[in-house]
Formats: sequence, structure tokens, C-alpha cells
Amino acid sequence: MSLIEEQFRRRGGREARRVLRATAIPMSQAAVRPGMEGGQYKPLKDAEMQRIHQTALKLLNEVGLARAIPSCIAAMTARGCFMRDNGRLCIPPALVEDILASCAKNFVLHARDPQLDMQPWGNKVYFGTAGAAVHVVEIENNSYRESYLADLYDAARIVDTCENIHFFQRCLTARDMLTGHDLDINTLYASIAGTNKHVGTSMVEAAHVDECLQILHYVAGGEKKWRERPFVSQSNCFVVPPLNFAEDACACLETAARGGMPVLLLSAAQAGATSPAALAGTVVQAVAECLAGLVYINCVVPGAIAIWGPWPFVSDLRTGAMSGGSGEQALITSACAQMGHYFGLTVGSASGMCDAKMPDIQAGYEKGLTAGISAMTGINLMYESAGMHASLLGFCLESLLIDNDMLGSINRNVRGIEVNEDTLSFDVISETCLGGPGHYLGSEQTLSMMMTEYVYPKMANRMSPKEWNEAGKPDILKKAIARKTEILSSYYPQYIPRDIDEMIRAKHDIKLPREYMQEKTS
Amino acid sequence: MSLIEEQFRRRGGREARRVLRATAIPMSQAAVRPGMEGGQYKPLKDAEMQRIHQTALKLLNEVGLARAIPSCIAAMTARGCFMRDNGRLCIPPALVEDILASCAKNFVLHARDPQLDMQPWGNKVYFGTAGAAVHVVEIENNSYRESYLADLYDAARIVDTCENIHFFQRCLTARDMLTGHDLDINTLYASIAGTNKHVGTSMVEAAHVDECLQILHYVAGGEKKWRERPFVSQSNCFVVPPLNFAEDACACLETAARGGMPVLLLSAAQAGATSPAALAGTVVQAVAECLAGLVYINCVVPGAIAIWGPWPFVSDLRTGAMSGGSGEQALITSACAQMGHYFGLTVGSASGMCDAKMPDIQAGYEKGLTAGISAMTGINLMYESAGMHASLLGFCLESLLIDNDMLGSINRNVRGIEVNEDTLSFDVISETCLGGPGHYLGSEQTLSMMMTEYVYPKMANRMSPKEWNEAGKPDILKKAIARKTEILSSYYPQYIPRDIDEMIRAKHDIKLPREYMQEKTS
Repeated sequence: MSLIEEQFRRRGGREARRVLRATAIPMSQAAVRPGMEGGQYKPLKDAEMQRIHQTALKLLNEVGLARAIPSCIAAMTARGCFMRDNGRLCIPPALVEDILASCAKNFVLHARDPQLDMQPWGNKVYFGTAGAAVHVVEIENNSYRESYLADLYDAARIVDTCENIHFFQRCLTARDMLTGHDLDINTLYASIAGTNKHVGTSMVEAAHVDECLQILHYVAGGEKKWRERPFVSQSNCFVVPPLNFAEDACACLETAARGGMPVLLLSAAQAGATSPAALAGTVVQAVAECLAGLVYINCVVPGAIAIWGPWPFVSDLRTGAMSGGSGEQALITSACAQMGHYFGLTVGSASGMCDAKMPDIQAGYEKGLTAGISAMTGINLMYESAGMHASLLGFCLESLLIDNDMLGSINRNVRGIEVNEDTLSFDVISETCLGGPGHYLGSEQTLSMMMTEYVYPKMANRMSPKEWNEAGKPDILKKAIARKTEILSSYYPQYIPRDIDEMIRAKHDIKLPREYMQEKTS
Repeated sequence: MSLIEEQFRRRGGREARRVLRATAIPMSQAAVRPGMEGGQYKPLKDAEMQRIHQTALKLLNEVGLARAIPSCIAAMTARGCFMRDNGRLCIPPALVEDILASCAKNFVLHARDPQLDMQPWGNKVYFGTAGAAVHVVEIENNSYRESYLADLYDAARIVDTCENIHFFQRCLTARDMLTGHDLDINTLYASIAGTNKHVGTSMVEAAHVDECLQILHYVAGGEKKWRERPFVSQSNCFVVPPLNFAEDACACLETAARGGMPVLLLSAAQAGATSPAALAGTVVQAVAECLAGLVYINCVVPGAIAIWGPWPFVSDLRTGAMSGGSGEQALITSACAQMGHYFGLTVGSASGMCDAKMPDIQAGYEKGLTAGISAMTGINLMYESAGMHASLLGFCLESLLIDNDMLGSINRNVRGIEVNEDTLSFDVISETCLGGPGHYLGSEQTLSMMMTEYVYPKMANRMSPKEWNEAGKPDILKKAIARKTEILSSYYPQYIPRDIDEMIRAKHDIKLPREYMQEKTS
């Protein structure tokens, strides 16, 4: 034990622990909360943002996008877009500016529980999952296996317990769903059954969007109520980079927007493969594509609720493999977040990924540095920030719990330092030094700030080597496995009431067995 | 293999790999280099920095510091400081401002090899080690053992091979040195024997500083050459927070400055214990203490080369234990770095620490987020950024190699995004989309930028799950152990020529056996 720790325990520790036990801090005073305001990190200068903006406009006007579907062409040309001889749909700069001025801004993303609603605008930051991993990472046997629908429900339940993961977007592909239809319907169902945070999901066909909307109407208590508080958004890759529309996704996009479902306009190029190797060029292309998406959806449904989603990824140019855990990834995500602020849009992008296959030190530092740096931009919605491995190919339930700790630490940095008469502490320092005890242990300020100024992790271990040794060398992975097992065997939130569930199951092919959704009684 | 990877291998991969093999990129064009310019992250607003500055001045004027030694009192009162009735030495604001205007700025920190000199001013960032760990972390048997002199020499040799660790400050306490004298002399010797990067070390008595200077004169080729290019700095805890001078350290400080040795003016409080629990108050106190140190050393040796070292640490207020891996740590280090820029000083502080005992996912995310966020401030010298565990109580040789990868990724973010006509890539995008191949694989820009735009890790694994499985599930810790073993058994730089070494050993009690410093021939 260090001298400080010894003194602490003697002089202030008992009182501190009493306060800690006695104090139920309301969320409004907690050290970190959803939607803390970041924005203190600005990788791009103003003039650089202007140049990226202007280059994107020039691309949309001169190069445009290929493969627009008829409904897209009709809606966009009606507002002044034009088709070039080469079949590419081009957007005049003035229309982009008009749409930027008139599109939906400062919109709430709803949750089933209104207390979990998000206000993702300005520099407010929210962390969430996302992804379409095809594997689940099994720590105990150091291996990957196929990902299933039950894993998705489990992931949703765990996220529901994680205070620093603010929304749940589907993070894996349920490979036991054998058709696109089964996948879309059941991905939605398993997600909203497991959490009442805001949910993001994806659909591969417009007809599935309609069916999902039916389910959501049931759950919301009718279409009107759904449209008042849509609590599920659609993640939509409307573009195949570079600068091609994606036919099926566009149809889904239009259907979602017409149905009152918020959309995430997602452009997911890979630098050096489907976008330029130059990082600035990759940002330009992502900005151009997502502006095209914004124009498109606003031509179809003016004022549609749309999250602006430039999600460029990085390639390891030695192999072409994606590297979501690279430093370059943090940089381009951060630049895209800053461009979102430049346009005044709600911006969502991906950070906190890793290339590591297992939750090891590589996973930790890749997640920590990418999420940590990007969060400081004030990115509104940070997708992929928990649970992902192997550059999005693997998803790990235990990592959710560990990443939740990490995101708490990062969120403390997003919140920043409050500088005011009280926190500057002149009087506290002065009194401590002049006739005071000469230390701050157990001082009034220390006790009063221990829950409001500091975040305490749940999984991370802060013992000294001696304590750690005496405690049998606790291991964070074993702790996470135990906590996961505890949650999954005991936490069965009933977010879909029984009667509604029966209605849904009567009309839709729900594959998640009801028995799986309740505590085992054996 | 993904479609992109498949296409990449077919269309561009062979050529890319040829370029990769053929291209020796000069350091001036490498993706990351020592001294990249950061500063894009500013946790404090201008008005907040002014208030911190003013509060610090008020503290120095009204509260001052206790326990000044006679030479300190003499030098400081001669310049206008005054002793209050309570025995505290106070500093008038005007003197602080005078010293800030006249003190050494924009000074080079030299290395034995001039190519490794550092220019730590403005927003330039350099990463290095530091610390006084009393344990070495042994990964293979999941345990801690006492740290020895040979470990320090080994650490120096490994750092010498790490391109993203730019300076070497002693990171552990050689517990086999039984006196303060043996510790000081041999810590210096083992450090400069193992690396020709800039070295930082510490001494506990002024007489040892003199003896260290004698050794350094030998190595430099005389006092004049030493004073022209002093390649060792002294890390000096001249203050016992809150606001007490440390007698022995002050004597060492004066001796170092007189001997032409750069000093690191280090204030290392622990928030909630030896500085206020309010983070702003902790920054205020660190700023005040380090300004006092700056005034002090400039009163003793005007223009002394001094690194401004506010190093506040965080306490876990539940136990009083230090938490170097916490989010709050990143925040206060970042704020201190920004205050250094505000004053135009060379600022060195600690980030990249962790509370984790072993190099696990906790270690990774704690290091990644703290180092990643703090580096974006443009901190000039980031100490403790590699190898540390258990909040500085443990040091791990293998972690140096892994952290070297991490620091490369972070440094890529420090460098930021270059936005110019070429990188904006309008022509590249336009040509790719209009009649081009529709992708950027193997494009001229991609090939030309693969070594200048992207950093490639050495320890981290970027394989797909399938490749990883086929490769026998490589583990980063095993890889780091193997690389460490390889370096330590084969890399014996001879930075102290044989004749000089004999001279040193004849006059000083050097404990590191010469046999340990050369390859085993058996």
C-alpha cells in the first residue's frame, strides 16, 4: 500500500466509502451521462472543410452517381438533378445547399423508454453498437463460430444493462436465418425484444421494410404512435462506392422514409479499394456520397429523419484487408464527424473497432485509441463502438461489458473539465495548505465530488500488484464471462408484452423461441 | 477472403507488394515521424486557461510554497519573491510573467545520435518512457517480480529499436542497487549504455548529480562537448504537493542546471489526496507548482533548459489508489499540455499508463484512450507512454514492443489529414468512376501512397478470422515475447566505446557486468 493509500484509508477512506454507499446520484449529476458535449478535437481547419465541401459538390455536379433507380431519378430530376449522357445522375450544387438548409435537423432519436431518448445534435455524443459480424468470438475456447439469432437477442439484453452504450444497432448476422425475409424480420424482433434503447437495424428488400413496420405498429400501439416516436432506425447502404446507387437498398430507403422510420445514410467505402488511398480523398468521396443520399431522401420525402453516415473504412494496402482498428480509421472517422458538424447535420460514423481477433491488448488499444480520439470530435452517434473484433467479422458478448467500461472513461473526456470558481479550488487549496491538514483526503470537496467528478469501472481492475496477487490474480476476461453468464441467465426484460407478442407471432414468422426469452425454471 | 481482398490480390496486390518490397521510404516521407504536429484537441477554452493562469498566480502570491531551502530563498528573494510570516515563500505575479517571457524556449533535447535530437516545442509531439516501477511484469508466469538493473539496460536496448518511442527515461527502480548512490550512477549508466536516444533519469542527492556529470563528460568527450549537446535530462520532483518544496530534489535541481543538464520540473500530485478532487483545481495546483519551479530554476540559473512538467495523477477515491489508466487521467494530462502551450513552454506530462496488471484488454484500452486523447493536444513530451502497468508499479518489456505499435497509430492521428489538390483526389475519383476500373486497387495514387499515408504495425495482427485460424491462432503476447527474446539476445549496441567504458569503470562503481553487455558466444 502506498503512503497515500494508507493515509487515505486512515483519514478519509471510511467516510468516503460511507458516502459512496449512501449516495444514490441522480443521472443528471452522474460523472458521465448520455449525450455529453464534445467537439474539442478538430482535425480539419475551416478552410480544409470548405475545400472538402467544394470538391464534393463538384463531384456530385460533374461525375454524379450511376445506377439510380427510376423512383430516385424521378424524384431527384423533379428538383433539378439531371442525367448525363453516360447515365449518371448529377446534382447541381445549389440543390445540395437548398437541401442542407431545409433538411431535418436537431431531431430526437426515440427509445421505447422516453428516458433513453437521444438528442444527437450539436456536439452531443452517444455510443452504440452496429455491424454485421458473421462470427461470435468465443473467449473460452479461443475460437470463432457462426453467429445466430439467439446471440443477437443476448447482445441486446447485455447492451440493455450497459449504461455507457446508449443505443443498440444490430451487430451481427443471424446465420441461422436462411432467407433474407427471415433475417430482416427476426433481426428486428430479437433486437426490440432485448432492449428498450433506440434500435438500429437493416433490411434487404422493400417488402421486408413494410413487414417490419407492421410489427413496429403493433409494438408502438398503432401507426400514429409509431410515427410520433419511431424507436427503430434503418441502417441503409444506399451507395456502392465509388458513386453508384445500390438498387435494393434505395428501395428500402424510400419505403422506410415513407413509413416514418429514421434512416442512417451510410456510405462504407474502403480506402485504397473503393475510395482513394489519400485520406482526404476518401473523406471527400464519403461526404459526396452521403450528401447525395441526403438530397435523394429529401427529394422523396422532404424532411425525412436522416442520420448522415459517412463511414469510410481503411484498407491494409499490403493485403487489401480492412483495418478498422488502425490509426488512419480514427482519423477519417474524426474528419467525417467534423464535416457533419460543418453542415449542421446529425452525424453517425464508426469507431472503436479492432483488428484483433480476441479481446487482448491489441483489441484494447485499437478500440481505445480509435473510439477515444473520434469521440472528442463530438460525433453524435458512434456506431461499432462496442463488441466488435476482426474488423467487424467477429462479435464478442463479453467485449460489450469491457467496452462499456472503456466508453465510460472516454465519455468522461467528452464531458471535459468544468472551470468555475468552485472547481478552480483556490479556497480549498489555500485552506489545505495554510493551517489545514496538508492533504485533501476526506475533505468536503473530495467527498462531495467523488461520484460527480469520477467514473468507476465495473470490469477493470485497479488493485495494486500486492492486492491483485492476494486476490488470486483476477482476470478481466474471466470476470466478463461470469458477468455475461449472470446477465444472460437472469435478465429477461419483457419489452414486448405477451398479448402483443402473440399477435406478432400469429402473423409473422418469429424464429426466436418464446422459451428462450424467459428464465429457465428447471 | 472478402471480395475486396480477392480483387486486391488479383488486380493490385502483386504490384503493391513489389512496391512495398522495393521502396525504402526515407524517414522524411514516412507515414509517421518523431515530432509530428498535433494540437487539434483543445479541452480548455481560452477564457478557462486565463482563469487557471490567474488562479495559479494568486496561489503563488498569497499561499506560496513551504520548506524552501536557503539557496532557493536567496536566489528567489533576490528577484522579488518574499517570505511570509508563516514561512512560505511567495512569488509576485509580475516575476512569474517576467520569467515566462525570459525563460528558455524552443530548445533542442539532444540525443547521442544527432539524427535523434528532438525539437519539442510548438505542437510537436514525442513519445517516451518514464517511471520508477518496482516490479517487472513477467507475462509467461502471470506474475510480478522485483525489478533489477539488468532490466533497465534491457528496456533501453528495446526502446532503441522502437521507432515510435522517441526518448528513453528510466522506467524502473533497480532494486538490486542497495544505496542511493549506486542507484543513481548505475541507472544513468545502464540507460546510456542501452540507447543513443535522449535519456532522462533522476538522482536523489546533489553529490550524485556531480558524479553523473563526470560520467557524462567522459562519454561526451569533455565538459564543453557535454554542454553543447547535453543528451541526458534530469527528472526532478522539486515539489511535494500541495505546495511544499522537496529539499533534496531542490539541491539536485540546482546542481543539474549549473551543470548544463536539462531538467524536467515535475509536480506529481494525486487528485483527491495531494491535490483537489476537482479536476480544474488539480490542474491549477499543478500549474502553480510548475510555474514556481520555473521561477526557481531561472532565479538560480537564468535561461536554464527546463521542461515544464505538470504531472497530476488521478486517485480512485474509493480506495485512494492511483488510477493512471482512467479517463480522468487523460483529461487532466491534456489540460496541462494545453496550459503548456498557453505559456509557450515545452511541456512534458504522463499519459499512456494503465491500471491493468498484465498486458490484457484493460491495459490496451487504458493505454490507447489515455495516450490517444492526450497526444492530440500536441503535448511535446509524452512520458510514461510505453511499458507501464499497475499505475506505474509494474514495467513490462514486452509491452514496450506492443505500445510501440500503438504509438505509431496514435502518431498517425497527431499528423492529421493533409488537404490539398492532390489529396482531395477529384481527378482520381473522377477518372476511376468515368470509364476507369470503378475501383482504386492498384491505381497509381494507391501505390504511391501506401508507404507515406499508412502505418503498418509490427506486432498487431490484421488477419481475417479464417487466416488467423489457419495460421494457428497467433497470439500477440507470444509474438512480443519472441521478439523481446530475439532483441535481448542479439542487440548489443556499443554506445559507450571500450576505452571510455574502462575509464568510467575505473572511477565509478558500475554494477552492470561487461559480460552482460555483449552477445553470448558460447
